[in-house]
Amino acid sequence: MLRRYVMKALIRNVYVITMDDQDNRYPDGCIAVEGDTIAYVGDEERLPAGFVPDEILDGCGMLALPGFVNTHTHSAMSLFRGYANDIPLMDWLAQKIWPLEDRLQPQDAYWLSMLSIAEMAMSGVTAFADMYMFMDQTAKAVEHSGIRAVLARGLQGPDARSEQRLAENRRLWEEWHGRAGGRIRVMVGPHAIYTCDGDYLKRCMDLAGQLGVGLHIHLAETRTEVEEALKKHGKTPVEYLESIGFFNLPVLAAHCVHLTQRDMDILKEHDVQVAHCPVSNLKLGSGIAQVSRLLEKGINVGLGTDSAASNNSLSVMREMTFAALLGKGINEDPTVIPAKQALKMATVCGAKAIGWSHEIGSLEPGKKADIILVRCDAPHYHPAADPVTHLVYSGRDADVDTVIVNGKVLMRKRQLTTIDLERVYHEVERIRHRVMGGTGDAR
Amino acid sequence: MLRRYVMKALIRNVYVITMDDQDNRYPDGCIAVEGDTIAYVGDEERLPAGFVPDEILDGCGMLALPGFVNTHTHSAMSLFRGYANDIPLMDWLAQKIWPLEDRLQPQDAYWLSMLSIAEMAMSGVTAFADMYMFMDQTAKAVEHSGIRAVLARGLQGPDARSEQRLAENRRLWEEWHGRAGGRIRVMVGPHAIYTCDGDYLKRCMDLAGQLGVGLHIHLAETRTEVEEALKKHGKTPVEYLESIGFFNLPVLAAHCVHLTQRDMDILKEHDVQVAHCPVSNLKLGSGIAQVSRLLEKGINVGLGTDSAASNNSLSVMREMTFAALLGKGINEDPTVIPAKQALKMATVCGAKAIGWSHEIGSLEPGKKADIILVRCDAPHYHPAADPVTHLVYSGRDADVDTVIVNGKVLMRKRQLTTIDLERVYHEVERIRHRVMGGTGDAR
Repeated sequence: MLRRYVMKALIRNVYVITMDDQDNRYPDGCIAVEGDTIAYVGDEERLPAGFVPDEILDGCGMLALPGFVNTHTHSAMSLFRGYANDIPLMDWLAQKIWPLEDRLQPQDAYWLSMLSIAEMAMSGVTAFADMYMFMDQTAKAVEHSGIRAVLARGLQGPDARSEQRLAENRRLWEEWHGRAGGRIRVMVGPHAIYTCDGDYLKRCMDLAGQLGVGLHIHLAETRTEVEEALKKHGKTPVEYLESIGFFNLPVLAAHCVHLTQRDMDILKEHDVQVAHCPVSNLKLGSGIAQVSRLLEKGINVGLGTDSAASNNSLSVMREMTFAALLGKGINEDPTVIPAKQALKMATVCGAKAIGWSHEIGSLEPGKKADIILVRCDAPHYHPAADPVTHLVYSGRDADVDTVIVNGKVLMRKRQLTTIDLERVYHEVERIRHRVMGGTGDAR
Repeated sequence: MLRRYVMKALIRNVYVITMDDQDNRYPDGCIAVEGDTIAYVGDEERLPAGFVPDEILDGCGMLALPGFVNTHTHSAMSLFRGYANDIPLMDWLAQKIWPLEDRLQPQDAYWLSMLSIAEMAMSGVTAFADMYMFMDQTAKAVEHSGIRAVLARGLQGPDARSEQRLAENRRLWEEWHGRAGGRIRVMVGPHAIYTCDGDYLKRCMDLAGQLGVGLHIHLAETRTEVEEALKKHGKTPVEYLESIGFFNLPVLAAHCVHLTQRDMDILKEHDVQVAHCPVSNLKLGSGIAQVSRLLEKGINVGLGTDSAASNNSLSVMREMTFAALLGKGINEDPTVIPAKQALKMATVCGAKAIGWSHEIGSLEPGKKADIILVRCDAPHYHPAADPVTHLVYSGRDADVDTVIVNGKVLMRKRQLTTIDLERVYHEVERIRHRVMGGTGDAR
């Protein structure tokens, strides 16, 4: 029987921050990769003698970390980055975003997703959870780029197209779940309780149950959402979802800005996963989530950027800095959300939030090789101190030098290896001209 | 009579954002520089024919902006970056920072300031307002590096050394005010009302009056400061300073987190300049300043980083993003502090705050040539939209390509031209080992 040869790579001379349960670190460490999997993490002197690498990456002056996980985004919305800002949310959606979305064509989503994937990879994101339309195009961009993603068709209903959307989510699962070398998984994506009625939410739950996957939803993002739920159902959005059995399935809930104590208890009881999106919540004026209280309750919290339309960036590293600082500021307590906790949210807790912690989120033998190398030679890394502190409070995503997903290099010395950026820019400008005319450049 | 030849430089093919009163922009603009001064800003076709440049800088794909102004920092405190984090403020000061400060030697401040200057230049800061000890060493670092600064000796008293500190501030003015090609100015730096008594504050005011300069002070940074002032003086910190006539002199007040409506009226009435330091205020758990209300009152607000010990970075661009987003988030209103307002705070309002708007803060003929070029080719600048929006909401300080101060290039293609970074790192590590031993690397 013929055995396929598996490529072996060794990252050496590197300060390894594993983010494993013991918080192991190896200041003069190395990481051995076999195919798509981590074979060894630790001091190089203990590297198994039989491991003979085909390729060696010198990590001198760099940190090795698990890649960042973006737990909530809409990658094809990169078209709307900077398009309309500093205006109220409903004006923004109704007058600006929705009319343009109607002009999008399916293949646009490929290039727009690719732009977001390029930005994410360049800021150290190796996996993301996405929800939007034309998700087969996003899946193709994920496949071609080499990044990892959990994809859900955004679902609203009932309306004339709501059944079709459910069918698209099912087809997305049939065609893409577990594909691209295992880099793509699929969830079911009911948009929110104010865009789906109770029956439609149950259709979504049924589909998720049939497929054996989780649900990705926007939850308690704004005060208005909470007020309307109280008016309509006599319940908060969280209470309402609990009442229909929604949380009996695995749920990834984005935002969770406006929660009662009882809401938090419900989230904890059902192990609901929270995608904290601090920058988008600030920029849209939604408010500031009480993350430290969620953490005190033992609720798992990952970090999300939301889309480039409301952020306007896709940097989980930036979200990490915001999360750590906002926690301290709103509680007027500098001990809240210490650096290590913030880095956990950006990595291992994010992996758990998107239902993938069995394979990613930390650097451990047997896990998938999703690894980033961060260069620490800029002034903001001096003098020497705990590198996690430097990373969270003064690090920049432009310090990310190398990005590896599933054992393959997506970026080296800040040069993307799988994405032709100039082509992406060209296609995105072409789409912008068709969809927006000249309006995008308005001052 | 021999006339000294003045070097002429032309920055062309560049999108110029002037930040002048008319908010002029030139998408295909150029900037002509003669010696240390801007000679022309506008479309290249109208460039005076007699202007023959000695040097041409191609700004293709870049924005030209006035350099960022850091209105409040303590540059020599870069030693403490990442040294002690996530602990309460008074523990941090009393147990961590103050004991180490006693071990500092004067010449340490030269290298530590140089590290901060390098970081600031690399993030597009061209001028900063500083307050600390050993300020003659910081002045030397400013002189050698080519950056611009307003320096004040930090003053506390009365105690055994308080008269000496006043004498040092006077000597700083005698030796450095207007020196280094006009790049250095001096203020008087009473630290705060809780470290200076009334008589000592009046000594500071007298000195400032004699020298004809302004005062740089920490003000209303924490709730504790306000509570103690109310207890001791029956007045808020702002009311107290007004009562002793402090605001009859030009004042740069850092932080201003905890203000009453009456405090704001007083600040407005006396044209007190505010240095808003959002990141430091968050990180130390001080709170979030009500900047939108200050702006509504017509109070001038610039941006400051505070020191690397409490930030942990010196990026005014990062402060700009935080200021714009926090304003929206805490007011739950996305129209608060729009992008253009945030950029004004980082540039022209910052220049006014440090008392230098007659020479810097905008790109206009006759002003000093403090110019930065920002490269816009990363994914987060796509698709094309208002560049100010991109800059504020998705820009990164690592996008700053070129930094010019007083007509001299300090950085080009992200390479510093006047600072030997490796030497700085070496000296800073040497200082760290002497002052801290191995403790800085503790986890």
